[in-house]
Amino acid sequence: MYNTLTNSPLFKGIAPEEIENIFSLINYKIKKYDNEQLIASREEPVNHLLILIKGSVRGEMLDFSGKVLKVEDIHAPKPIVGAFLFGAQNKFPVDVITCEETSLLIIPKESVIKLFQLNPQFLQNFLNAISSRAQFLSRRIWFLSFKTIKGKLAQYILNLEKTQGENINMKLTQKELAEFFGVTRPSLARALGDMEKNGIIEANRKQITILDKNKLITLIE
Amino acid sequence: MYNTLTNSPLFKGIAPEEIENIFSLINYKIKKYDNEQLIASREEPVNHLLILIKGSVRGEMLDFSGKVLKVEDIHAPKPIVGAFLFGAQNKFPVDVITCEETSLLIIPKESVIKLFQLNPQFLQNFLNAISSRAQFLSRRIWFLSFKTIKGKLAQYILNLEKTQGENINMKLTQKELAEFFGVTRPSLARALGDMEKNGIIEANRKQITILDKNKLITLIE
Repeated sequence: MYNTLTNSPLFKGIAPEEIENIFSLINYKIKKYDNEQLIASREEPVNHLLILIKGSVRGEMLDFSGKVLKVEDIHAPKPIVGAFLFGAQNKFPVDVITCEETSLLIIPKESVIKLFQLNPQFLQNFLNAISSRAQFLSRRIWFLSFKTIKGKLAQYILNLEKTQGENINMKLTQKELAEFFGVTRPSLARALGDMEKNGIIEANRKQITILDKNKLITLIE
Repeated sequence: MYNTLTNSPLFKGIAPEEIENIFSLINYKIKKYDNEQLIASREEPVNHLLILIKGSVRGEMLDFSGKVLKVEDIHAPKPIVGAFLFGAQNKFPVDVITCEETSLLIIPKESVIKLFQLNPQFLQNFLNAISSRAQFLSRRIWFLSFKTIKGKLAQYILNLEKTQGENINMKLTQKELAEFFGVTRPSLARALGDMEKNGIIEANRKQITILDKNKLITLIE
């Protein structure tokens, strides 16, 4: 377990022996789950830090009309709902369901606070992890505010152009980009195709070349 | 200043004398701004914790088409961009502009880390503040995923109904709710008016009564 944990964002920069050492001073347990098991329901209080030791889970939300909205997949050795352990609304924001056989490291909140005191690097990693989460959500809201898929794409491409110039590496696959924008993959592909057909960009997998920047800007609504 | 700070979420539960004591051990400065001054630009690195001692600021984003998007107002004694001090993308997510004469307490990141060690309550408050921020953003994304204003309202009302029953206190004013949903206030008022006219709800300021729950559910798209 300690070797797996060194690859987790929360234990980055901490030697396996040191992890073993600090774990001997706190409470924790490990729980195994089968495929398609419910780990926690939306609105349940979050009183433990949960870290995937093996396997993967997905977040799902059911709206009041009964439609399922998949949020995202999380793979070992990442934490689950780290940003929901503290704060005013420390409740699961989604149902958490296993996607395969999964092992979970479960650390009570008091032990997490003890870990902060035992190891400053762990505290820094935890702060980085939840801050990065807030930053990701904030960027996502920014993109959700553009009404059309082409508008989102134009804003995203122009953002990257500032640092990369006109030959752009999109960083995300079409599948990841569609998830980030909250749209389906076919509609994303269609939007990219239209923009190519209209001579605005040239797209080749993750590589995009801007051919007509002025037209690209007009797509933002 | 120390009395103002006891009302700040970051110093809640810490006595003014203790705040004075720990501030004598760290670096900080106070800077005054006039009305309508730019405090920081989007994409500038965040290397200091900024706390409003007096006055207020707003966040603004300019998209590539030149349209200004106002994000939110922040008033003293709250922190600005606390969730952007740590993490992978520690850059200002927006331009920050003063809305009146404003004083800012500026604490370098190293001194913030020292404050964590000097006072565990400050650390807990900081964790709560950035976690609450992530939780707020996460809830906002959930509401942005409903395409129509009536859909957002139906989901919001049904959420509250679970804990409050059919007589619901909306908690937010129409102005705050419109900002939370990312829509204009007149369109929110129009949606509420339509829902009243169709006998689905009865609305009286922040008070909502559900008259036809089944019809309310059908509004969710």
